[in-house]
Amino acid sequence: MSLAFSVSAVDRESRARRGSFMTRHGRVETPVFMVVGTRATVTGLDPTDLARVGAQVLLGNTYHLMLRPGIEVFRRVGGVHGFMGWSGPILTDSGGYQIFSLSADRTISEVGATFRSYVDQRMHVLSPERSIEVQSAIGSDIMMVLDVCIDSRSDEAATRAAMERTHRWALRSLAARTDPAQALFAIVQGGVVPSLRVESAGFLADHPFDGLAIGGLAVGDSRAQREEVTHESAELLPADRPRYLMGVGTPPDLLHAMLAGIDMFDCVLPTHLAWQGTAFTSTGRVRLTRGPSSSVDAPLDAACGCATCERFTRAYLHHLFKCSEPLGPRLVSLHNLHHYHSLMADARREIEAGTYAAWARTKLDAIDRHEHSARRLGRTA
Amino acid sequence: MSLAFSVSAVDRESRARRGSFMTRHGRVETPVFMVVGTRATVTGLDPTDLARVGAQVLLGNTYHLMLRPGIEVFRRVGGVHGFMGWSGPILTDSGGYQIFSLSADRTISEVGATFRSYVDQRMHVLSPERSIEVQSAIGSDIMMVLDVCIDSRSDEAATRAAMERTHRWALRSLAARTDPAQALFAIVQGGVVPSLRVESAGFLADHPFDGLAIGGLAVGDSRAQREEVTHESAELLPADRPRYLMGVGTPPDLLHAMLAGIDMFDCVLPTHLAWQGTAFTSTGRVRLTRGPSSSVDAPLDAACGCATCERFTRAYLHHLFKCSEPLGPRLVSLHNLHHYHSLMADARREIEAGTYAAWARTKLDAIDRHEHSARRLGRTA
Repeated sequence: MSLAFSVSAVDRESRARRGSFMTRHGRVETPVFMVVGTRATVTGLDPTDLARVGAQVLLGNTYHLMLRPGIEVFRRVGGVHGFMGWSGPILTDSGGYQIFSLSADRTISEVGATFRSYVDQRMHVLSPERSIEVQSAIGSDIMMVLDVCIDSRSDEAATRAAMERTHRWALRSLAARTDPAQALFAIVQGGVVPSLRVESAGFLADHPFDGLAIGGLAVGDSRAQREEVTHESAELLPADRPRYLMGVGTPPDLLHAMLAGIDMFDCVLPTHLAWQGTAFTSTGRVRLTRGPSSSVDAPLDAACGCATCERFTRAYLHHLFKCSEPLGPRLVSLHNLHHYHSLMADARREIEAGTYAAWARTKLDAIDRHEHSARRLGRTA
Repeated sequence: MSLAFSVSAVDRESRARRGSFMTRHGRVETPVFMVVGTRATVTGLDPTDLARVGAQVLLGNTYHLMLRPGIEVFRRVGGVHGFMGWSGPILTDSGGYQIFSLSADRTISEVGATFRSYVDQRMHVLSPERSIEVQSAIGSDIMMVLDVCIDSRSDEAATRAAMERTHRWALRSLAARTDPAQALFAIVQGGVVPSLRVESAGFLADHPFDGLAIGGLAVGDSRAQREEVTHESAELLPADRPRYLMGVGTPPDLLHAMLAGIDMFDCVLPTHLAWQGTAFTSTGRVRLTRGPSSSVDAPLDAACGCATCERFTRAYLHHLFKCSEPLGPRLVSLHNLHHYHSLMADARREIEAGTYAAWARTKLDAIDRHEHSARRLGRTA
């Protein structure tokens, strides 16, 4: 296995663990939050910005990048790192989720998926082998296998069929990899059926994937189901490889999942909410477009040391959003990503000290209290 | 006069001059290009970015800022500098041009303009005194008098009437100023009628304005008319005060106007065109959305040392624009503003050396050649 993942500390009262692994573009300290940069860019931020907020790993997307700029560009320039100017590690998702959620005019068979491009309206094929070929050209440090995503509310027979095809595709992906220095993660499926999750984790753990991901969540399931599957699946995954919970989530989601021993996360929330004017702060979420922010001549978060909080007030950010000025989303993106990365850095320290569980519960209580009090007071800030 | 403007060098073969003046927020080296930040922000860029591209002075707009965030905010926080985090000089336009070009439902009388706010649909009054009151609250280093803008194609009687009202308003503005540390510039009007321009410049020069601006251009006039008025007006303006050509222009416009002895410029072009994907380069304009850029694995401009050219290729910028990613306009804005400020820094050096005229003509020829060759070849880059 190519990542040389090692665990340096385990929390005293939970399964939370502190580790690291090595990629061709540097070491990654876990647990890690990875920043979503679907189209070889994180909306409005450049690689210097990302390094400043503490980003370790960026996430690209095979489906989007194969359509634009296309595999030929990556072959020509030698991969996505040079193309976008990011010299740190990059993980690429395989496109399985996009085939499920985005593609119009798609057919999925044992061979792979056929779908119409939103760029040039032509038909494209995304098979397990093609996904690996594209990810090889992209030159990501960690590739994901193409998986079959279905709605969590599908019946058990359909969920089993999708899981079994995901397994066959995972083995085809492994066989298609040409450069073992590019790590390859498999994706555990099985919907919200515990026995299927056990079966999927067991099957994939028997093969030499460099890491294992929990997929197929946040597609019709409830938050309670999601947490249950996360905890059960994390326990089933081998301890010697990184565990990656795909597409999750809010700060409480991360705190919970780390308790279960998850090592890797990605989520669009910090940047997505920033573009809507919502900031994460140490005292709860702030919706900058709302009136109360207009008179706050203090930083977004007094406890934050990010480049936004060091320089600008909530009143100014409010003004930028009211004017639809692009500096607003940019400054809040910087803040939100700094908030996420600080949370992860704190979590890593607490795990090292063996005090993670108590710390995480205090954090979760505080967030709960802020959100509850915001609801109770009808606060609009 | 509050700016203590002084001229340190005059070009050997033109009226181009090198000078400087002092504001409450620092010294300004002239000739200077001022960056347009209408709503207390330069689209997508923060003050650190602006300092890095070499910006000396930012331009705010009284009309827009009085509507949002409103004068009360500036009174509360002590002005626009702290509000937007820019510690260098700021000039505010008076709103005269916006009343002319933007306002629906407006009436203009000797007292001032009444117009409907695009923010809250209420009626507002912008008189010479009110404009000064708002600019005082904004705390700009240089205020502009409220002027009467009309279409350059208006007849001579209408042009004279607008000019004469502009003069009366200028004197009312001067009388309304409370803090002489805030400089105040008058605006020469008179359309494209030479005798009126002479009259306007003569009238305003007789009063203790800290600088004189040439207004009322680019409102229906041709490029040739604009250049003629600029040259004639510049000659009429007193040598002991800065001459500001409002809202102009392209790099050739700046090069020409400096030959005539203009000291100050502002224009939205570098940022406005950046948002459309057009970059200024040493070999002509590049339209990044066009096909040819997709295969250029080299910087936008090999001769440029900006943060964009140092880090990204044209192919990557093309990709960002094709994906409508906000990083594209941001990176090209940084480049375009760097391009403008480099041009101005070069011009200042050439004037000091006494070689400006020859240098400017070589520059103008080169730009002309690039644009001509782009047209001749039907180039789409």
